Amino acid sequence: MEYHDRLELSEARFEELREHFETRTFRGREYEYLPDYRSDLNRGVVLLEGAIVDGFPKVPRTLVIEEGLPRHFEGDLAIEEKLDGCNVRIARVGDDPADEPLAFTRSGIICPFTTYKARELLPVESFFSDHPDVMLCTEMVGPENPYTSHDYSDVDSLAFRAFDVRDRETGDSVPVPDRRDLCAQYDIPQVPFHGVYTPEEAVEALPGLVTDLDDAGGEGVVMKSLDVSHQLKYTTSAANQDDLAYAFSLPFDYGQPFMFRRIIREAFQSVEFAEDEQERRARAHDLGESILLPMTETIERIADGETVGEEHTVRAPPQVVEQLLEHFDDQGLKLDVLADRTEDGDRVVTFRKVTQSTNDKTSAYLDGRIVKE
Amino acid sequence: MEYHDRLELSEARFEELREHFETRTFRGREYEYLPDYRSDLNRGVVLLEGAIVDGFPKVPRTLVIEEGLPRHFEGDLAIEEKLDGCNVRIARVGDDPADEPLAFTRSGIICPFTTYKARELLPVESFFSDHPDVMLCTEMVGPENPYTSHDYSDVDSLAFRAFDVRDRETGDSVPVPDRRDLCAQYDIPQVPFHGVYTPEEAVEALPGLVTDLDDAGGEGVVMKSLDVSHQLKYTTSAANQDDLAYAFSLPFDYGQPFMFRRIIREAFQSVEFAEDEQERRARAHDLGESILLPMTETIERIADGETVGEEHTVRAPPQVVEQLLEHFDDQGLKLDVLADRTEDGDRVVTFRKVTQSTNDKTSAYLDGRIVKE
Repeated sequence: MEYHDRLELSEARFEELREHFETRTFRGREYEYLPDYRSDLNRGVVLLEGAIVDGFPKVPRTLVIEEGLPRHFEGDLAIEEKLDGCNVRIARVGDDPADEPLAFTRSGIICPFTTYKARELLPVESFFSDHPDVMLCTEMVGPENPYTSHDYSDVDSLAFRAFDVRDRETGDSVPVPDRRDLCAQYDIPQVPFHGVYTPEEAVEALPGLVTDLDDAGGEGVVMKSLDVSHQLKYTTSAANQDDLAYAFSLPFDYGQPFMFRRIIREAFQSVEFAEDEQERRARAHDLGESILLPMTETIERIADGETVGEEHTVRAPPQVVEQLLEHFDDQGLKLDVLADRTEDGDRVVTFRKVTQSTNDKTSAYLDGRIVKE
Repeated sequence: MEYHDRLELSEARFEELREHFETRTFRGREYEYLPDYRSDLNRGVVLLEGAIVDGFPKVPRTLVIEEGLPRHFEGDLAIEEKLDGCNVRIARVGDDPADEPLAFTRSGIICPFTTYKARELLPVESFFSDHPDVMLCTEMVGPENPYTSHDYSDVDSLAFRAFDVRDRETGDSVPVPDRRDLCAQYDIPQVPFHGVYTPEEAVEALPGLVTDLDDAGGEGVVMKSLDVSHQLKYTTSAANQDDLAYAFSLPFDYGQPFMFRRIIREAFQSVEFAEDEQERRARAHDLGESILLPMTETIERIADGETVGEEHTVRAPPQVVEQLLEHFDDQGLKLDVLADRTEDGDRVVTFRKVTQSTNDKTSAYLDGRIVKE
């Protein structure tokens, strides 16, 4: 069958959409990927040698648990923890069992570092031998992450946590209880599981669960109908404010909608959680600190002649790190290497993705550039 | 001379720009006005019966006084207080001395209420008899203002404060010292004057002056070369945070750039004023309160079934208030009248300009609308 049939698109619509795909090559294999959301197709869908790797769908959000959750779910739902890392799909593409399982980032790019780490940390050979037609949907988390770093007490460097197993082409999920069992069979670590609830029970349980996660610095929860046809997410104040602190440390590189949405979430949560005046004022003070302090620190660093950007550390065998740095270079990212050493045979590199707008605009304003607004 | 010659535009460029003008009628007199900024023409420029009323130019801003000010001014500059109200140009258009002086809002709309108040509160008859070719550029301030209300201790209801006198057509200003004298001769109240400085002296003086204004809840300063060919503004933290509080009380009606710019100003000011950790943290807490508290109050009001919007009170003879309400209605504004009484022959009306987006979106989220972002 043609791509368009298998994507359930008319030939004409598929040809239209195909213009938005980009082409790359990974180890001699050419693939196309869709880097943005488009109606009719998920962001990150990949076309590779006649095969399709579906993108991971956007998970909608509610700002108000009590009203949004019952509107979204009719029957039982599972609650799992949402981790703060990056969404990685792992799939084996090709008929040859010797084909290497590949790791795709959210936008559909095959990352050589992540592909290496998946094989190092997960039983991908046996899993895909037994289940060649699925993709393993994971969050790649931990402090030594080239995309999104966040500390978890049980992750020293980097780890994958599965949260879904889907048909690679159709995106149909293995139901939550079956997927929990399936991953457990292969010792594939999963995101923490918080149980199955009716909508009414979930509304009751969630504020306490979210508050506990918030106290522990966690990101939030994803609620899923058991067949995963419906998903809904909700984040903690810690996650909203961490994101804001990060965005305001690079204020001219993050979109204003990114910031605005997180501020709005804080307000709706404060209302839904019925905070008293003292709690609300404490949240406001934390919010103000998350916004102002990273931004003033950035301005002062740039005033002192430093460069700012997204700093990450990665740890892998030298040739894998080399491939990752080339991979970023291919994408036009400007990297400054801040530290580079060898430890137990691994190369450990700390680098900074230079975010040009914040450096340029902050410098210009510090030099007295006039603002016409 | 044709309009385009007097506006120093080619005929072709003028015809292009003219498509962006809108047409209205005021007391039988048709006029065109340019509601947005365009290159080559000021926002608010008006064409009326062959006459031109120039728009008031955008005043640029610096985020860093120490660098921006010396880059912008070569010689002496005057510092005047920036008041928090709305920019109103008053001009007499037409050859007949009996023609009424008209009041134009920033975008060039003739406001019947403001026109009435200008005649009531300023000696416009004698001023324009003597100086028919100028426009009086004023800030209309005070608590009973249909556009921007702000309390000033010396304004019970509404007042005009002149800050410029310009040629009505060319926009050339009367130099600051001459304008101060001219307005004083006619007892036309002006914005507070803080003296004439060299750029170096101004850099020295401004942080203290801005801090004093901030403590008094003032908006900021405008610096002007004496011929007013160069202007530069700088605002207090109080103004930034008041604006944020107002914007976040109607979060889906204000543009995100409006909010973002004010947050950025706070950060640059904190750095330039070399705040210690305690001062910076206090600013962050105030900032957080300015953002979160008005927003949660709005959500709670809408949850309680109330409607939110921009509330204003106006006081004038009944027929003038009637004209203002019709004027807003003509513009498609939805007004709720909250209070309506007569006092000493004046009609005193408190109304709310309903800001539809905030009411609609907040209600939808409270009802559990799912966010796809």
